[in-house]
Amino acid sequence: MKLHHVYGLAAILFATAGHAQAPFQKAEDAVKYRQSALSLMGTHFSRLGAMANGRVPFDAAVAQENAALVRTLSRLPWAGFTPDTQGLTTKAKPEVWRETERFQGASEKMQAAVAELDAAARTGDLNAIRKTFGDAAASCKACHDHFRR
Amino acid sequence: MKLHHVYGLAAILFATAGHAQAPFQKAEDAVKYRQSALSLMGTHFSRLGAMANGRVPFDAAVAQENAALVRTLSRLPWAGFTPDTQGLTTKAKPEVWRETERFQGASEKMQAAVAELDAAARTGDLNAIRKTFGDAAASCKACHDHFRR
Repeated sequence: MKLHHVYGLAAILFATAGHAQAPFQKAEDAVKYRQSALSLMGTHFSRLGAMANGRVPFDAAVAQENAALVRTLSRLPWAGFTPDTQGLTTKAKPEVWRETERFQGASEKMQAAVAELDAAARTGDLNAIRKTFGDAAASCKACHDHFRR
Repeated sequence: MKLHHVYGLAAILFATAGHAQAPFQKAEDAVKYRQSALSLMGTHFSRLGAMANGRVPFDAAVAQENAALVRTLSRLPWAGFTPDTQGLTTKAKPEVWRETERFQGASEKMQAAVAELDAAARTGDLNAIRKTFGDAAASCKACHDHFRR
C-alpha cells in the first residue's frame, strides 16, 4: 500500500466531513466514532424506509426529521476511517485503505443521494421520498458490498 | 417501581425527542442507539471543550459546526432508555427508570444548556462559548453522577 495515498485520503476525508472533525486520540476511538455514526444513520434511514415501503403510515413531519438527521449524520463516519484503525478487527475490509479513491467516491455518492432524499422529504411528497430513498439505499449497499465484511 | 410512570416517561421522552423516534425492535437496539448518540455527542462536545479550554486554537467555524452537531444529537439518546432495556448490563443505573421525572428534567436541562452553547457558538465569540460550555458540561456531569454507573 502506498502510505502517502492513505494519508492523502485521510486529509480529503477530513475536508469532506468538515471542520468539526479532528484526529482521534486512539484508533479505538475512531472506530467507535464511525460505528456510532453509521449505526445512528442506519436507524433513522430505516425509519424512512418503513414509510417508503408502506410498513408504517406516512407522516411528512416524521419523514422530514429523519431525513434531516440522516443527512447530518452522513457527513460524519468517514473521519473515523483513519489509517491507524486498519489493524483493528472491524467490518471494514482492507479495500477501504487500498482503494481510497473508490471509497471516497462511494462516500460522496451516498452523501449526495442522502441530500436528494432530504430535499424530497422537505417537499412532503411520499412518491418523491420513495424514488430518492431507493437511490440512497442503493448507494449504501454498493459501498457495503465492496468495503464491508 | 410504578410501571405506569415508566411508560409515561417513555411517552414523554418520545415526544421530547420528536417524531423521528419510534420504538426499537429489540432492547439491544435501543441501548446501541442511545450509546451511539451519547458517544458522538461526547466526541463533538469535547472538541468544543478543547477550544474553550485553550488546548486547541479557537476556530469559529469549527466551533459552530461542533455545537450544531451536539445540539442535534442532544435530542436523540432519550428515546433509547426504553423500559425493556432495564435488564441489560449497561452504565445506566436503575434510577433512570425509578426517578423518571428527575431523569427527564436532567435531559431537558442538558438540551437547554446545549441550545445556549449552540447560540453562543453562532456568535463566534469565544468568551460566550466558554461561559455556556461550562453550564453544558455541568449539565452532563450532574446527570452522569446520579444516573450513570
